[in-house]
Amino acid sequence: MNANPKFIAATAQVDQAAIQPLPKSRKVYEQGSRPDIRVPFREIEQADTPTMFGGEKNPPITVYDTSGPYTDPDVKIDIRSGLAPLRENWIAERGDTEQLDGPSSAYGRERLADPKLAELRFNLHRAPRRAKAGANVTQMHYARRGIVTPEMEFVAIRENLRREQYIESLRASGPQGQRLAELLGRQHPGQSFGASIPARITPEFVRDEVARGRAIIPANINHPEIEPMAIGRNFLVKINANIGNSAVSSSIAEEVEKMTWSIRWGGDTVMDLSTGKHIHETREWIIRNSPVPIGTVPIYQALEKVDGKAEELTWEIFRDTLIEQAEQGVDYFTIHAGVRLPFVPLTAKRMTGIVSRGGSIMAKWCLAHHKESFLYERFEEICEIMKAYDVSFSLGDGLRPGSIYDANDEAQLSELRTLGELTQVAWKHDVQVMIEGPGHVPMHMIKENMDLQLEHCHEAPFYTLGPLTTDIAPGYDHITSGIGAAQIGWYGTAMLCYVTPKEHLGLPNKKDVKDGIITYKIAAHAADLAKGHPGAQIRDNALSKARFEFRWEDQFNLGLDPDTAKDFHDETLPKDSMKVAHFCSMCGPHFCSMKITQDVREYAEQIGVSEAEALNKGMQEKAVEFVKKGAEIYHRS
Amino acid sequence: MNANPKFIAATAQVDQAAIQPLPKSRKVYEQGSRPDIRVPFREIEQADTPTMFGGEKNPPITVYDTSGPYTDPDVKIDIRSGLAPLRENWIAERGDTEQLDGPSSAYGRERLADPKLAELRFNLHRAPRRAKAGANVTQMHYARRGIVTPEMEFVAIRENLRREQYIESLRASGPQGQRLAELLGRQHPGQSFGASIPARITPEFVRDEVARGRAIIPANINHPEIEPMAIGRNFLVKINANIGNSAVSSSIAEEVEKMTWSIRWGGDTVMDLSTGKHIHETREWIIRNSPVPIGTVPIYQALEKVDGKAEELTWEIFRDTLIEQAEQGVDYFTIHAGVRLPFVPLTAKRMTGIVSRGGSIMAKWCLAHHKESFLYERFEEICEIMKAYDVSFSLGDGLRPGSIYDANDEAQLSELRTLGELTQVAWKHDVQVMIEGPGHVPMHMIKENMDLQLEHCHEAPFYTLGPLTTDIAPGYDHITSGIGAAQIGWYGTAMLCYVTPKEHLGLPNKKDVKDGIITYKIAAHAADLAKGHPGAQIRDNALSKARFEFRWEDQFNLGLDPDTAKDFHDETLPKDSMKVAHFCSMCGPHFCSMKITQDVREYAEQIGVSEAEALNKGMQEKAVEFVKKGAEIYHRS
Repeated sequence: MNANPKFIAATAQVDQAAIQPLPKSRKVYEQGSRPDIRVPFREIEQADTPTMFGGEKNPPITVYDTSGPYTDPDVKIDIRSGLAPLRENWIAERGDTEQLDGPSSAYGRERLADPKLAELRFNLHRAPRRAKAGANVTQMHYARRGIVTPEMEFVAIRENLRREQYIESLRASGPQGQRLAELLGRQHPGQSFGASIPARITPEFVRDEVARGRAIIPANINHPEIEPMAIGRNFLVKINANIGNSAVSSSIAEEVEKMTWSIRWGGDTVMDLSTGKHIHETREWIIRNSPVPIGTVPIYQALEKVDGKAEELTWEIFRDTLIEQAEQGVDYFTIHAGVRLPFVPLTAKRMTGIVSRGGSIMAKWCLAHHKESFLYERFEEICEIMKAYDVSFSLGDGLRPGSIYDANDEAQLSELRTLGELTQVAWKHDVQVMIEGPGHVPMHMIKENMDLQLEHCHEAPFYTLGPLTTDIAPGYDHITSGIGAAQIGWYGTAMLCYVTPKEHLGLPNKKDVKDGIITYKIAAHAADLAKGHPGAQIRDNALSKARFEFRWEDQFNLGLDPDTAKDFHDETLPKDSMKVAHFCSMCGPHFCSMKITQDVREYAEQIGVSEAEALNKGMQEKAVEFVKKGAEIYHRS
Repeated sequence: MNANPKFIAATAQVDQAAIQPLPKSRKVYEQGSRPDIRVPFREIEQADTPTMFGGEKNPPITVYDTSGPYTDPDVKIDIRSGLAPLRENWIAERGDTEQLDGPSSAYGRERLADPKLAELRFNLHRAPRRAKAGANVTQMHYARRGIVTPEMEFVAIRENLRREQYIESLRASGPQGQRLAELLGRQHPGQSFGASIPARITPEFVRDEVARGRAIIPANINHPEIEPMAIGRNFLVKINANIGNSAVSSSIAEEVEKMTWSIRWGGDTVMDLSTGKHIHETREWIIRNSPVPIGTVPIYQALEKVDGKAEELTWEIFRDTLIEQAEQGVDYFTIHAGVRLPFVPLTAKRMTGIVSRGGSIMAKWCLAHHKESFLYERFEEICEIMKAYDVSFSLGDGLRPGSIYDANDEAQLSELRTLGELTQVAWKHDVQVMIEGPGHVPMHMIKENMDLQLEHCHEAPFYTLGPLTTDIAPGYDHITSGIGAAQIGWYGTAMLCYVTPKEHLGLPNKKDVKDGIITYKIAAHAADLAKGHPGAQIRDNALSKARFEFRWEDQFNLGLDPDTAKDFHDETLPKDSMKVAHFCSMCGPHFCSMKITQDVREYAEQIGVSEAEALNKGMQEKAVEFVKKGAEIYHRS
């Protein structure tokens, strides 16, 4: 059924759209304690304030950059070679891993030996690594032994966004800079519902958060290409983009394109949910070219191996799949170990039953065998695999509600409690854990999800799909869910799994992926603002200042999607001269409120004294009533 | 600068897209206590459940219908004649109004006499009405005198959505119907923050809400074409769509098209914010063809009359504009009477000053004259005009924040307190009032807006623009604001003013209008669900049931935008046979979780007893552990 042209490894090329420079943006790196810790940021250059509004210099704004080497003009991108293995030395120098001769999974060896696959196989010259016998190579294990890894330092630098340096250098630059520092640095105190976000993230703080399980750094030793990032309630809210083909759609090239497209727009991690042909090969291409952590749901592939017959799944097949994928470098595995046999009947009265694919596969298996889930029973054995490669758990919510009707029901909450129990088992093995969450939940029932997750899962990071706040808008579920995602992010969710406009209807194309990403970047940022994440408001402040000063290009460029902003503007005012116009098509020259506000300020200056004084003077002439009321109002806060 | 082809009244035609039937939808009317109270609804027909899933009949779902006669195949639409004056007799029979000889405003007479305008003028054969001397024709006035008007009864029937009849007729239809009634009628108890929504809306309840000012029915006596609707915290959350040309864009035909397009997708009211040429004539075309209330900001037109020079505005010009527009039939006026002279200096230190056009115009006027706003000082005179036509106040938030930085500042809150003071003045005159709200507000500061509004404005309906929860996504402000709108709707806002993707960038085209409307329908409905509005969940339940049963067409048709849902589905599974497929392109036939859940249920049935029992039986064979834990879990709630 796949109508796509055949993918050939030898001619594979990067999507040109992924390597175009973003307007006025520059890739910069900040070096850590050693030369090979180079943390990437994007700097967005700004124009000066127009002379009529003061003429001040607006220094570039630094933003978090997930796009990896693709947007670095100094890096030659060839997806056939994959990205440079940034972490290779960090992993090697720890001395606790060994290079294998080749894949140790039966399936991995079989695929490698199949000559029919040569044409589309990624040509990897590196054998997989595994922990030495008895060793544990997780970031959590290091953290608990007091070791600050380069990954942790990288994360610390990354999370700070060079904020302090920025404000300090502004302050040091004179009175105009001091005013700017005050303006851009000001932020509303947030409401964080018990999060503990420090003003500055130190490597030691990262270590401590990872050690206590409140954050994870997904970083498989076989994915040395990643730029480390953290998922945790006391860090910036992250977003995940799902990609993946199915039996009826998509090809390898498309999936690699979706990955590079996702990270260009801000995807912090990418899940490859492929279920069709060549899953193994597709995954290899994605991982080798991904600077962000890759997650998968191994049960999907295990099911492929038994021709879609859930009841034929075995622990042995599943185990081999875990090893196969761990040796390719998957950074986190969704494991639906909380779908226990006793919970299945709790779903019988639901409106929409079990909507998680992994959950329904396991439910079917449990029933077919009248047995407890092998994922639950073999959980400690799974932990042994996870810690040999540092794969993080994403404990799947196989019983999440698939409709408003089913929200927060006993099936869902029973599973959540089990995930909390499993979290403690994983932590016993120093294996990193995050917890997946719903789903479809009306707004007023979202907070209960977060509260119960914190309670039952001991502050392990929460990673939610939306939630969708209504079922009635197929085609717009990026929005129904963006509303819920912003809220749950505010309440404490560490990573938001995007939902695209195609949810419930089909597989997302590149446009859908971008719509999903931007919507979720909005939700995550709105959550950071509401939590009062230090410095989160700088970008809002800078953009609003640009908007107020009619710096149209800066307004576009500081936004999440400069291309769309510019296109929209140009639809009604296409001429270049209009980009410096002090009005726009919405109101025209006379009615522009921004312009009138400027007039108000200018008027105040014209009449001789400073703005506020002038206005006060004008008002003193007015009436006793004003002085009384106005003064009262002015001093109230 | 206007490149649009010239609009000619004689050849004006309805937008064909506005009169296409919605798929499987039927216009139905419910009659009230008299034959001329005919309340429109849309009924969405559903297919039977597939035989393999039980084969039950799924009765049609009734939804709120704002589209007016345009979607009634029995009505001949000719925009040159306008809509039928549904309320004409109701107004006439009250005997408290008089038909004038013609417009009583100077401007209205001037425009009517101008032969150059003949070509584009709507040909109205009806003279305006006005209250008889000393009479008060507001719905609030009637309500306070204990009169239940036909408008109030219309609203009551409309708000109930025939819910009780629906559930009762299902229950009466046998065991299958009883099961359906249980399934579709079930709803989560909401969290309404003090709203008092009865299970059934009676005409008397509507009267009481209007009498105490907690709801308004915008219904100018010169807009007899409207289908009455209510805006209030104890009714369904409503949305408003802004349309309007400007000096640099758009034409009359386009604006009428945007109005019909808005109501097709669910706009409950429409604001005509035109600022360009022919405002008067454009407005006439819109009102005569609008079945929903129309709002305006009269100061925009008043400013046109003084060539954009705010300082040249006078009370006389403004007063004439109010009368001109009231006699055309505008249902609510945004009046920025809370922008008082003493509050202007409070905006001087803002990031984005005064972003409301009306607010900045009035601020400029106040400063230019060193005088208190004439809107504030003449407020009682304005009330006299409002009550002569039943124009409702939408007290404008001229000092709303235009950036996250400026949220909830003293300028904004000072104005809000003033609006509360003015509300009481208006109520003294029995004039209906709603209060406009922000703007740009981070999530954690939204509730304060609602709480303060309720406190200071005595529960007059709140009508907010978003709020936008971050500034960093120009091009996506329907989403940044949809997040805030859903929340503030939940907290108690009665009507949400949409924001389109073009916000801050340009004037919306039809696509933008639709994107804005659907986003805000989502926000409003998510709010209704969270408040626990009775019956709000029926549509979600029906849609989710359709989704679960693979009734693809029903899933599309029950959604807010069937066209987009169907197009998205067809992109990856275009064949007609795929619309009955029991899987979709996302997962393919083997992996479909819905299908697997069905298998789970079937499996349970195959093994002989009822589903839950079968599963329990299976589990009893398992272990003591299960019985203990499972039973505990099952009985917990």
